[in-house]
Amino acid sequence: MKFDPRAGEDTLWRYADALAVPDLGLTLGEGRTPLIRASAEGEDGLLLKVEYASPTGSFKDRGAVTLITLARLLGAERVVADSSGNAGTAMAAYAARAGLRAEIFVPGGTSGKKLEQILGHGAEVVVVEGSREDTAEAAAARVKETGAFYASHVYNPFFHDGVKTYALEIFERLGAAPATLVLPAGNGTLVIGAHLGFTALREAGLVDRIPRIVAVQAERCAPVAAAYASGATEVPPIRPGPTAAEGIAIAAPARGPRMLEIVRETGGMVITVSEDEIAAAHATLAARGLWVEPTGAVAYAAARRPMPGTAPGEIVVAPLCGSGLKASL
Amino acid sequence: MKFDPRAGEDTLWRYADALAVPDLGLTLGEGRTPLIRASAEGEDGLLLKVEYASPTGSFKDRGAVTLITLARLLGAERVVADSSGNAGTAMAAYAARAGLRAEIFVPGGTSGKKLEQILGHGAEVVVVEGSREDTAEAAAARVKETGAFYASHVYNPFFHDGVKTYALEIFERLGAAPATLVLPAGNGTLVIGAHLGFTALREAGLVDRIPRIVAVQAERCAPVAAAYASGATEVPPIRPGPTAAEGIAIAAPARGPRMLEIVRETGGMVITVSEDEIAAAHATLAARGLWVEPTGAVAYAAARRPMPGTAPGEIVVAPLCGSGLKASL
Ligand SMILES: Cc1ncc(COP(=O)(O)O)c(C=O)c1O
Ligand SMILES: Cc1ncc(COP(=O)(O)O)c(C=O)c1O
Repeated sequence: MKFDPRAGEDTLWRYADALAVPDLGLTLGEGRTPLIRASAEGEDGLLLKVEYASPTGSFKDRGAVTLITLARLLGAERVVADSSGNAGTAMAAYAARAGLRAEIFVPGGTSGKKLEQILGHGAEVVVVEGSREDTAEAAAARVKETGAFYASHVYNPFFHDGVKTYALEIFERLGAAPATLVLPAGNGTLVIGAHLGFTALREAGLVDRIPRIVAVQAERCAPVAAAYASGATEVPPIRPGPTAAEGIAIAAPARGPRMLEIVRETGGMVITVSEDEIAAAHATLAARGLWVEPTGAVAYAAARRPMPGTAPGEIVVAPLCGSGLKASL
Repeated sequence: MKFDPRAGEDTLWRYADALAVPDLGLTLGEGRTPLIRASAEGEDGLLLKVEYASPTGSFKDRGAVTLITLARLLGAERVVADSSGNAGTAMAAYAARAGLRAEIFVPGGTSGKKLEQILGHGAEVVVVEGSREDTAEAAAARVKETGAFYASHVYNPFFHDGVKTYALEIFERLGAAPATLVLPAGNGTLVIGAHLGFTALREAGLVDRIPRIVAVQAERCAPVAAAYASGATEVPPIRPGPTAAEGIAIAAPARGPRMLEIVRETGGMVITVSEDEIAAAHATLAARGLWVEPTGAVAYAAARRPMPGTAPGEIVVAPLCGSGLKASL
């Protein structure tokens, strides 16, 4: 990877040299999100990356812009995606911007604001009752049937390649790798993407180590945490309970084994947060002027606990992944 | 004014040298919003500044961060603000971040999402039935009664001083002044702020002219347009009709005369857009992946018309002021 940020470019294409797809001019102004201190007073070492200050209100824009660029490169006219919401809104927006037709499969119970946005961008929405996995299967079936481009944020590495800019921006801003990244984990796009970014930076000789990656799940839907605790390398599906963290409620994460590898290789861990902790973190953030959807409070809920293995003053970065204007507690 | 952007700083404080208040560390990551082409295909010369990719979802963050910084400098513990919504959410968020108590006066009919956000940030909300002007009077009365800091985005020049960064960013990005700025106009914070920014740049010898400023109002609430058309220098209050552009529905704008001066001095004009044009612009933007609240479509609705006095290829910049997640059509 070449790390040679384009001066004066304030979209994700600032890192065009580091990305797997060429810059075809597709952008809604994603990337370059703020990195701010967790509290005005300092709260030693904890920095928050304000990923909701992004065109569609979540970090998924980072992967959508590269994946839809790929679809255009391949000459696709239609894309199919499946998503619990934020990836779907991002995919619908970027497909619209690129002039591609989009069909978005979402599970029942997806918040109304997200649906309204997907429809507003001219995409078709297919609501699939059943599990998140049923939604993915329905999307895959439609791809087989129609030959559309499968814009999968779960399987397609070009999505993760865009998400790696999360790491590049942190590096560019700090001039170094932080000690720890605390990341919410559903399907693992951020865990895998951030790891990819720091791996590339290490290979380029720009950092000498990859941050410890701490993955966070909601206690009520924590298949990766359960597998981690039991020492497994596979992630058996679990029966989830209801959680406010709809964005990471993935009972059978396809990339679960990769998340386990990443966490173990980097000396990190998988931890869970309770519904009460999510609500309390959401309230604390709001009381400090930060407005996230419930899932967006998950990483902070974990990061504000004393983190075993973190020396005082060491830098920990947690993302605020989705906007409070999208869904409420 | 010194124009000496701080390298590596990605908040509004990048322009600390140009601002009237010192950097006390107050930030939610505002500023540095994307400037993108209106359509993927180019639509000659028309650029959109994505002001909704901002911490609270509107450009008001630019003025709130400087005004609340002033409140802290002055040792205030309470602030009072009045707003039809976006200024109120911004003021509530920044007051929370700064640890100040806030009381926000809003007119009846303000959208539920905005109220929820203001309350989420721990501010008190006072809903005032009656006109926008009644809301302002109620706020002013509370200030008199309590001695709180009056965080007025309409009257306080420190708000406009923050908003001037809208101009500084456009200049830094383009390396020149665009030919025309098309700006929505309610109370005029953006008209006055953007003008302030380019005036300062001209005084610093960095640009040789100020862009033509075209102010846009909703046809159904267009007191400044009426005064402009009649050649007046004062702005008599009008009786407004209902408009989807709630953010600029100001029937008696206190800074109306200043807006008229700015428009005339810069060779601009005041124009109006109909409800149909607002709806059509909103739909076009959404079909291109851009998600704005109805008021956020107003400037684009005007800017996409053939603009008298603009030569082909000349650069015109219009802002997308507020997020579609805040209010819908
Ligand atoms: C707000 C929010 N946070 C975090 C995540 C987690 O991302 P992933 O499922 O890729 O692990 C998502 C995914 O949709 C999300 O919407
Ligand atoms: C979305 C939006 N656009 C434009 C404006 C216009 O700003 P001003 O009233 O300062 O002219 C506002 C003000 O609230 C707004 O909320």
